[in-house]
Amino acid sequence: MRAHQTPSRHPQAPGSLDAPLLRAIEACHTCAEACITCADAGLDDAAASLARCIRLALDCADACATTGPALARRTAANAALLRQMAETCAELCQACAAECDRHALEHEECRLCAEACRACESACREAAMSLGATGP
Amino acid sequence: MRAHQTPSRHPQAPGSLDAPLLRAIEACHTCAEACITCADAGLDDAAASLARCIRLALDCADACATTGPALARRTAANAALLRQMAETCAELCQACAAECDRHALEHEECRLCAEACRACESACREAAMSLGATGP
Amino acid sequence: MRAHQTPSRHPQAPGSLDAPLLRAIEACHTCAEACITCADAGLDDAAASLARCIRLALDCADACATTGPALARRTAANAALLRQMAETCAELCQACAAECDRHALEHEECRLCAEACRACESACREAAMSLGATGP
Amino acid sequence: MRAHQTPSRHPQAPGSLDAPLLRAIEACHTCAEACITCADAGLDDAAASLARCIRLALDCADACATTGPALARRTAANAALLRQMAETCAELCQACAAECDRHALEHEECRLCAEACRACESACREAAMSLGATGP
Repeated sequence: MRAHQTPSRHPQAPGSLDAPLLRAIEACHTCAEACITCADAGLDDAAASLARCIRLALDCADACATTGPALARRTAANAALLRQMAETCAELCQACAAECDRHALEHEECRLCAEACRACESACREAAMSLGATGP
Repeated sequence: MRAHQTPSRHPQAPGSLDAPLLRAIEACHTCAEACITCADAGLDDAAASLARCIRLALDCADACATTGPALARRTAANAALLRQMAETCAELCQACAAECDRHALEHEECRLCAEACRACESACREAAMSLGATGP
Repeated sequence: MRAHQTPSRHPQAPGSLDAPLLRAIEACHTCAEACITCADAGLDDAAASLARCIRLALDCADACATTGPALARRTAANAALLRQMAETCAELCQACAAECDRHALEHEECRLCAEACRACESACREAAMSLGATGP
Repeated sequence: MRAHQTPSRHPQAPGSLDAPLLRAIEACHTCAEACITCADAGLDDAAASLARCIRLALDCADACATTGPALARRTAANAALLRQMAETCAELCQACAAECDRHALEHEECRLCAEACRACESACREAAMSLGATGP
């Protein structure tokens, strides 16, 4: 399935989502992917000891930005799924905190990030527990 | 207003969004912010010539990830607003492309990113035009 | 440019981003777009008076999630660009608040959203002002 | 830790991230959360049979938007973590597809979404497999 087929099938106003909009939607997707790769590749030129830290921080930020809203939406019938999301987020927080700990003495923002990550890891594990005892 | 007040007011099931979930939602927000700052601060240790490139790429990726869905949703009554979003996205693409051009010879991923940015800038400007001739 | 060309050009480990990962990256993009369209189309079945409110809220959430990190990264050389992003975000907040006001008496969460939107609109306009007096 | 402490600790230019920017960053976070709750609460007024579909689609879109970039960044030392993310994303795709299937005859966009979800579920499971045979 081509990516731009879906928006053009929107039932509300067939034909109204014309070609420039469709091209912009498609180009936005392609461009976002290129930017993410570009940013990441640039980090290889950074001090090697920080590159892993930066990547984990970006991953962790994204996981948090996904998990928070999902918990706010709380699709009640999917407690197992929400629990899995919370646990995955907790794992990312744990990994990011462990890496940030290694740079905490030199980099104050790493110390703060590790602190926030551990708080979030803990909160997510408690949220997962509150959603049910048995794991998927 | 404290951030966690809003989810707790959800009408569907008062009382059901209990404390661990609320703490996780709050911690996710705090952690995401800390991670973004941490990642960015780490880049200062990178080659100075690339740090600006990385930041612009992250900004541009976010702008694209916002603008694409907004155009797909196309709140019809707000053509002026969609136009402004598309134009802002185009400006970010232009800035990112200009910076990436400076590193294109040494970094193939910068060359590809600049290319995608220019395509997206063009597509967004056309989308903005198709949404109306006059300014916002 | 095909979307999956970019990640495969990552300099760090040519050949290491093999086909399943590339397909997953591509499928994630396509699926995200389909989901956004699907969610939005479903809203047409909702009470018509709320559909516009929901769409504006989703747009506004995305704009806020983009603008906050961009301001945190503060690419200093691009004050004009950051100002434009903050102003665009403010416009979305204003539009969302105006729509939410219309439903505030019946829907408490609309009243809270309008309140948060107005606070954010104000904060973004002040941020834009602090970034420079002249227009973009 | 208050959310706005972290950006103010950025080492590059102490004191340069002044109050309006900090308030905007904070307000963006609060507003995004309010918008997400508002959007979701509005869906309760929709046809009950679609509300769950809409929520799963939003969750799935977010999970895909997180997992794709994480795979593109491929923090090599964390294959177990990437695998867990890919598997969680696959679970969300599966749940969204199953729900969309129930509305596929009446809603073409649900049929397309289910199709994209199944493709993404499959791609993510293959990506997870390629990252290692043993469990997380």
